[in-house]
Amino acid sequence: MNNKRIGVLTGGGDCPGLNAVIRAIVKQGITEYGMEITGLIDGYKGLIENNSKVLRLKDISGILTRGGTILGTSNRDNPFQYQTENNGKKEIKDVSEQVLENIKKLNLSSLIVIGGDGSLKIANELYKKGVPIVGVPKTIDNDLSCTEITFGFDTALVTATEAIDKLHSTAESHHRVMIVEVMGRNAGWIALHSGIAGGADLILLPEMPFSIDKICKKVIERHSIGKKFSIVVVAEGAYEAGSSVVVKKIVNDISMPVRLGGIGNRVGDEIEKKTGIETRVTVLGHLQRGGTPSAFDRILATRFGSMAVKMVNEEKSGIMVALKNAEIVSVPIEEAIQKPKYIDPESQIINIARSIGISFGN
Amino acid sequence: MNNKRIGVLTGGGDCPGLNAVIRAIVKQGITEYGMEITGLIDGYKGLIENNSKVLRLKDISGILTRGGTILGTSNRDNPFQYQTENNGKKEIKDVSEQVLENIKKLNLSSLIVIGGDGSLKIANELYKKGVPIVGVPKTIDNDLSCTEITFGFDTALVTATEAIDKLHSTAESHHRVMIVEVMGRNAGWIALHSGIAGGADLILLPEMPFSIDKICKKVIERHSIGKKFSIVVVAEGAYEAGSSVVVKKIVNDISMPVRLGGIGNRVGDEIEKKTGIETRVTVLGHLQRGGTPSAFDRILATRFGSMAVKMVNEEKSGIMVALKNAEIVSVPIEEAIQKPKYIDPESQIINIARSIGISFGN
Amino acid sequence: MNNKRIGVLTGGGDCPGLNAVIRAIVKQGITEYGMEITGLIDGYKGLIENNSKVLRLKDISGILTRGGTILGTSNRDNPFQYQTENNGKKEIKDVSEQVLENIKKLNLSSLIVIGGDGSLKIANELYKKGVPIVGVPKTIDNDLSCTEITFGFDTALVTATEAIDKLHSTAESHHRVMIVEVMGRNAGWIALHSGIAGGADLILLPEMPFSIDKICKKVIERHSIGKKFSIVVVAEGAYEAGSSVVVKKIVNDISMPVRLGGIGNRVGDEIEKKTGIETRVTVLGHLQRGGTPSAFDRILATRFGSMAVKMVNEEKSGIMVALKNAEIVSVPIEEAIQKPKYIDPESQIINIARSIGISFGN
Amino acid sequence: MNNKRIGVLTGGGDCPGLNAVIRAIVKQGITEYGMEITGLIDGYKGLIENNSKVLRLKDISGILTRGGTILGTSNRDNPFQYQTENNGKKEIKDVSEQVLENIKKLNLSSLIVIGGDGSLKIANELYKKGVPIVGVPKTIDNDLSCTEITFGFDTALVTATEAIDKLHSTAESHHRVMIVEVMGRNAGWIALHSGIAGGADLILLPEMPFSIDKICKKVIERHSIGKKFSIVVVAEGAYEAGSSVVVKKIVNDISMPVRLGGIGNRVGDEIEKKTGIETRVTVLGHLQRGGTPSAFDRILATRFGSMAVKMVNEEKSGIMVALKNAEIVSVPIEEAIQKPKYIDPESQIINIARSIGISFGN
Repeated sequence: MNNKRIGVLTGGGDCPGLNAVIRAIVKQGITEYGMEITGLIDGYKGLIENNSKVLRLKDISGILTRGGTILGTSNRDNPFQYQTENNGKKEIKDVSEQVLENIKKLNLSSLIVIGGDGSLKIANELYKKGVPIVGVPKTIDNDLSCTEITFGFDTALVTATEAIDKLHSTAESHHRVMIVEVMGRNAGWIALHSGIAGGADLILLPEMPFSIDKICKKVIERHSIGKKFSIVVVAEGAYEAGSSVVVKKIVNDISMPVRLGGIGNRVGDEIEKKTGIETRVTVLGHLQRGGTPSAFDRILATRFGSMAVKMVNEEKSGIMVALKNAEIVSVPIEEAIQKPKYIDPESQIINIARSIGISFGN
Repeated sequence: MNNKRIGVLTGGGDCPGLNAVIRAIVKQGITEYGMEITGLIDGYKGLIENNSKVLRLKDISGILTRGGTILGTSNRDNPFQYQTENNGKKEIKDVSEQVLENIKKLNLSSLIVIGGDGSLKIANELYKKGVPIVGVPKTIDNDLSCTEITFGFDTALVTATEAIDKLHSTAESHHRVMIVEVMGRNAGWIALHSGIAGGADLILLPEMPFSIDKICKKVIERHSIGKKFSIVVVAEGAYEAGSSVVVKKIVNDISMPVRLGGIGNRVGDEIEKKTGIETRVTVLGHLQRGGTPSAFDRILATRFGSMAVKMVNEEKSGIMVALKNAEIVSVPIEEAIQKPKYIDPESQIINIARSIGISFGN
Repeated sequence: MNNKRIGVLTGGGDCPGLNAVIRAIVKQGITEYGMEITGLIDGYKGLIENNSKVLRLKDISGILTRGGTILGTSNRDNPFQYQTENNGKKEIKDVSEQVLENIKKLNLSSLIVIGGDGSLKIANELYKKGVPIVGVPKTIDNDLSCTEITFGFDTALVTATEAIDKLHSTAESHHRVMIVEVMGRNAGWIALHSGIAGGADLILLPEMPFSIDKICKKVIERHSIGKKFSIVVVAEGAYEAGSSVVVKKIVNDISMPVRLGGIGNRVGDEIEKKTGIETRVTVLGHLQRGGTPSAFDRILATRFGSMAVKMVNEEKSGIMVALKNAEIVSVPIEEAIQKPKYIDPESQIINIARSIGISFGN
Repeated sequence: MNNKRIGVLTGGGDCPGLNAVIRAIVKQGITEYGMEITGLIDGYKGLIENNSKVLRLKDISGILTRGGTILGTSNRDNPFQYQTENNGKKEIKDVSEQVLENIKKLNLSSLIVIGGDGSLKIANELYKKGVPIVGVPKTIDNDLSCTEITFGFDTALVTATEAIDKLHSTAESHHRVMIVEVMGRNAGWIALHSGIAGGADLILLPEMPFSIDKICKKVIERHSIGKKFSIVVVAEGAYEAGSSVVVKKIVNDISMPVRLGGIGNRVGDEIEKKTGIETRVTVLGHLQRGGTPSAFDRILATRFGSMAVKMVNEEKSGIMVALKNAEIVSVPIEEAIQKPKYIDPESQIINIARSIGISFGN
């Protein structure tokens, strides 16, 4: 009776929990709804190049605990601005019609797109062109609106906190300033949470431009009361207040700073120069995107996947699953991609952090 | 101006995050409010026996990441029903007046009680007798009402999930049924969440009495499709439907089953007998109460501690801090201890679990 | 040119690192020697029932980090004493001739047996009957002679030590005696090493029968100097000196105690009864056999696998690979299975443990 | 009778297990030998500046599991070449006489120096000047001669392997080359072991200068057989064969390359440029020096500490404790510091790594 063929793709950067979403979709799709689930290979690229494989129950055995995505992903595969090469010349083409054709060829009645901001925007454009789509939000940065939290964030937080724990003893034994640069270009959720969890003394966030002088003041203050080490957690998108090097870009009518790279190292150099205290920098980078998903992320990803395939079964479209008040709900994709979710500098958690002695260097 | 002396105690079973609460109270109390913080030793026992020590900043250095409680705790220290020995005869006495006196002797203007259901009930009684009290909810079982979640639960969940992960490969290699008994006498939150996170095939909850036959049916069904192993997560309070051995007790006018112990072993014996498939049982026990708190628990515990001392500073009383909609709020203790928070068998998460193939044996 | 067909089987209890051995054999066998590697399913059972599958490079992709064995294993599959059922009657038969036939049918020129004491004894019997065999030692208990260490032990040690770490804070907060029962029926290596690593106060080993009175004396001594908790690590094969309940069995002309089960609980009951101090028992059980292998075990298992397939390529037989002086060597299987490797009660490590205050309860 | 006062110091870079050594020395020194143990603060600096504190049993409570060193350490405190400032001018002075005086003032009958190559050389010079000294070898790099292994190495290996595990899934999902730079300036032990444990495709060691072309050839080879990702582990001291930028320095008559920094990034740039495959670099840095020591390291560190204090009690001097054939022995410090322990490019483990398909890029 039910002969739905559903396409699934994972887009954008790696994120712990992607496989858990795929697993839930395939399990529930096949056993509860009798669907056939087609996995697109390497994100939208699979749709553009018509590269896919049917996912069976055995394909998802054992993947719940695995990082990465069995479908592969790609960061450079926007069908509306696809990079191709023609006689050695790079071109950017709109290949969205080709995508629509491939969806027909593959006989897909619906598409589930698991992705972040970028992938969901593309999904919304395809939806406007008539493709039935359900989105699943994904970002380790936790900066997606319309959902309280996304999977991947908790695992990244655990990784960052464990790193801070490891650096703590060295900081203390060597009387050093230890700087940890964590992910977060536009929003500092990982920095804020791992900083509180790891007992940081300073946390530098994109939402609260810092002053090097205030940072150094805090470090020296600690020194003067016998705390000869300091832990500084820096989001990669943090920047100095009034910094002329910060270029703003406009995304969805919102101006945001462009990351210039290496903020951790620059802050470290300044602190060492100005305080004379030995300073070391660690950049966590891709470690935060990998590893077995945390228990929390596995559960959330499973719930998202289950709800997404349920929505598809109910022939819903143009929506994204989301977490609200401990329940999985659906919201219009349109709404979800309006603007990123930033930390409010006046929020309760920021005030609490200040109250227990954490400085934001501002 | 502010010469408040605040007492702090930790009551009931061990729980990862207790030290993080204490740390936040001491840090903020001393540096922000100029308070003197007095730690009561071993829970209410410290109040009964007038055993305490003043907590200074150096006492809390490095405790954020440590399990347990630097104040000690006790399970048998109810001042309203205190067990004493008189000439070799055990007596139960009300020593609450003695407690009130000791509070005066210690010159405490307020008390922060970090504890579960039991400790908070006692706190509420003391509050009614005139002691200014702010409560901080604590339970690894997550069964406290009026707060979305408590610290300790996430760490217990991580421990339980890691255990299931470890048992998974052995189950598969040996074609065994592996049973994991986790904590949860009245409410099955750890079992439900670790079961989903660990990819369990069956989850047995106190809220949903099971049938051995249905459990065996599921195991055999899996066997028949080539899945020669099964993972069963059992909450310690799970019981067989219609089981005559279940004794009900009345707590706060609510009838609840009394744990008889060893449900994991009993279920294991039955499965092995009825299916002929080799079955092994692991009881996690106190492992779930220990270890360094997870990042999530450290943050929540820190926020609870911070808010509790803030409430004290604002001379609030009879309240408990709680998490609601990502904010820390306060609720009347009275309300919080009305009844435990059970899993609703009709809730979304239960339905999702069923949809991806998890059986509750009922 | 090289048309060797090699059989591989994993026998006995689960052990982290089995997959790493298989991976090394398949990688090196195929790419370096052009062999065809046949995996026998479920240990010797695969040989008895002629159940196997050819292992290709893609079959071993990603298995280095996985616990368990992709080939399956079995504890009850001795071809010389095979349990069968005939008209509902259990029989024990010698099916070794059938095994020899199946080896011919499968056209295997050699067999690699990855297993413990039991599996290697069977391997030696088959070798005497003319089957070219190379053994790979495997035991989490580390009680195999002729090799300094086996893979699986380090992972079990890590798991046991993490458990003790978790119980430590609870012991301290609640002033309890915490007992951890770890694996080790005949030899107490896991108990000794995890006890030292976890900071245990008492370690009970099969090699050093204990006295309950001496255990209690130590616990009370600690109490009297203000250390109100104690950590006791018990090997499952530990027993009371002069205990009449200990049955000896003779294995390879060596008399050894038979485990009666539940020694942890019995010791716990006695301590609580005799000292009046609250005591809790945790039995780690199968947790010690699972999980991703530690870095050390992955390396050792890889080296063992690589050397085993090299030996096969050089047409060696009747030998077992082993670790000696940081090199992988080969020894006659015959020699390796002579007798288990026990802890010497007069050894340096035991004396060191005593010197830092650890009691063996004897 | 025994009125020995023993000094203890920890020198050089941070290393997991330092506290475990200190704990064993203090426990055994006080309870077994009745010594008084004096901790020198911040390595040799404590001797130079006469900064110390007496260590009591309560000072070492709970430190077994903690990274870092409770005594503090310093990298720039060589008494024979001490950096001081005189009227704003930097001077290098020999303050060894001052050290000898302070040892007298502190009334130390013996000194235990826990340190690496550098600290042990200083110890040997002090010994020649008449100070009774016992050394304890410490290096996460595992490049000290005369001991099979040192504590700290296993923990660093675990950290590096976990990092590679995390990067693996991202490498696979994104079809990337992932490069991990690990510690090891002169010797590549961490790189070699974590590379094998993490399933690396390429390992670049200081002992085996690489060729970028051969590295790229391996990456492309993998690509061509469908393995679209590669994992490259680089020791920080690895360098290109014939590289003109490598400066040699002479240490103990041995010529060794000087690290120029950022080898991971340089290799990554070259690979991306030459193969066109997306490449990402992670530099683990100080993460490898921190964290709770592994079970193995806690045991080894404990045994070292115990043996060191025993040697002191027996009035041995000029020696270093070491691990040989699973026993703790003592060797002349003189011998131990002769030359570092390098990986032999013809050793068995290198050949095994090659046999299972690992390339060393040479």
